[in-house]
Amino acid sequence: MTVIRLDLAYDGTDFHGFARQPSLRTVQGVLESALERVLGRPVDVFGSGRTDAGVHARQQVVHFEQTQGPPADRYPRLMAGKLPRDLMVTAAAVVQPDFHARFSVRRKTYRYTLQMSPLEDIYTRRFAWHVPEPLNFGAMNDAARLLVGEHDFSSFCAASTPTTDKVRTIYGIELSRRAEYLDLYYTGSGFLQYMVRIISGTLVDVGLGSMRATDVAVALSARDRRSAGRTAPAHGLSLWSVEY
Amino acid sequence: MTVIRLDLAYDGTDFHGFARQPSLRTVQGVLESALERVLGRPVDVFGSGRTDAGVHARQQVVHFEQTQGPPADRYPRLMAGKLPRDLMVTAAAVVQPDFHARFSVRRKTYRYTLQMSPLEDIYTRRFAWHVPEPLNFGAMNDAARLLVGEHDFSSFCAASTPTTDKVRTIYGIELSRRAEYLDLYYTGSGFLQYMVRIISGTLVDVGLGSMRATDVAVALSARDRRSAGRTAPAHGLSLWSVEY
Repeated sequence: MTVIRLDLAYDGTDFHGFARQPSLRTVQGVLESALERVLGRPVDVFGSGRTDAGVHARQQVVHFEQTQGPPADRYPRLMAGKLPRDLMVTAAAVVQPDFHARFSVRRKTYRYTLQMSPLEDIYTRRFAWHVPEPLNFGAMNDAARLLVGEHDFSSFCAASTPTTDKVRTIYGIELSRRAEYLDLYYTGSGFLQYMVRIISGTLVDVGLGSMRATDVAVALSARDRRSAGRTAPAHGLSLWSVEY
Repeated sequence: MTVIRLDLAYDGTDFHGFARQPSLRTVQGVLESALERVLGRPVDVFGSGRTDAGVHARQQVVHFEQTQGPPADRYPRLMAGKLPRDLMVTAAAVVQPDFHARFSVRRKTYRYTLQMSPLEDIYTRRFAWHVPEPLNFGAMNDAARLLVGEHDFSSFCAASTPTTDKVRTIYGIELSRRAEYLDLYYTGSGFLQYMVRIISGTLVDVGLGSMRATDVAVALSARDRRSAGRTAPAHGLSLWSVEY
C-alpha cells in the first residue's frame, strides 16, 4: 500500500466548495469520480482542508491510499484527460505512509485579491473582489499588524463555527500591490471557517474608513462576530499554498 | 432620434460569438434582450465587427438608435443590473448621427496571449493559449515583421472566407512579454475571418521551429490557406481596442 499526494489547482467559481456533497458539483466529488475511473475502484481522498463555495486554489493538497495503480508521476497527465478544465492536478508524488494531507500541515497561506479601479476587469472578475472606492493602505496595514500572532479569533469566524477552540496563530499578513490590484496574503497554522474572508472584509472596512484600526483591537477582545467587519465575498479568495 | 454608442467588455468563453443566432447564447443576443428590457421595445445593435465563439473583448463597440430612453451616461449602471457577469457595458455616449460602429472604424487592435510555463495557470486559462514548449522570440519577431504592411492575406484567413478582396493593412505587430506570458498585439485597418488566429498560430509554429520566418514570406505570396501555419485556439484572443 502506498500513499499518493496530489497537488490541485482549481477555479472555484463553478464548484459548491471542496467537500463532497450528494448531487452537488464539488472539487472532492469530481476528483474522486475521476480517480475511480483511473483506478477502477472507489477512492476516498483527504484534503488539507475545505474551501468554501466559490473559493479557488492555486495549491490544494490531498492524499489517498493506493494498492495498485499507475506510478505517481503519471497522475498529472492521466487526470488531465479525466478532469474538467477548472480542476487540475499540478503535481503528484509517493509520500511517507504517515503523511496526512490535513494533519501533517505546518503552515497554510491564503491570498485575498482586491481590484481597485473604477471599473471591474472582465479578465479577473472571477478571482478578485471589485472595490472601486479609494482604500487607505496605511490604516489597513496598521489593522493587519494587530491581528498577527496568537489570538482568540472568535470575532473573526462564522458565528456558527462548531470548533470550540478558536485560538489560532497568524504568522504574517502581507499587503502587496500590483497595478490596480491589492493582494492580501495570510500565513498561519490554520484558519477557522470564514476567518480569512472576515479579516479581509474588516480590513476593507478599515481601508474605506468605516472602521478604525483600533476597532480591530476592540473586536479581537470582544470575541463576538458582530464586533468585526463584513465578510468579503468568496470569489476573491484563493488557497495559495500548503506547507508540510 | 439620437445615436448611442456603447463600449462593451466580455469573457467570450460561454458565448457562441458576437453575432446573434437563433436559440444560441451570443453577445449581441444577450445585449439586445437586456436593452429591450430597459427601453420596452426591440432594439437592433450594430457592432464594430464579429468575434468568433470563445473570443473575448476588452473593448467592443456597438451603436443603436434611440428615440426615447435614459440619458447615455446612465447605461453602464442600468445595464449592469440586466446583464450576466460575463458581459459589461464599460462606457456609453451620444454620438454624431452619422456614427456607425462598423463603418466608422479607423483602426482595430487585437491581443493574442500565450502562456509559456510548463503548467497551465488556472487563473488565466480562459484567456491564454498554453504553449509549454520554449519559443524562439527572435524568429517570431522576424516573421511578424514580414506580415506588417499592406498584403493579400488569402493564406491567412479561413479558406471559406466569402470576402473577395483579401488585401488588408497591418500597421503593427508587437510582441510583449510579461512574466510567463507573451502578448501579441495586432493593429490594422481591418482583419479577415480567423486572420489573427492564423497569424498567431503561424508565429507559434515559427517560435517552435516547425516553420521558418522565411516560410511566412512564401505563405504570403502563395495565397493559399494550406501554406500558412495552424489556427491558434479562440480562447487566447481578445478584441483589445477599436479606434474611430
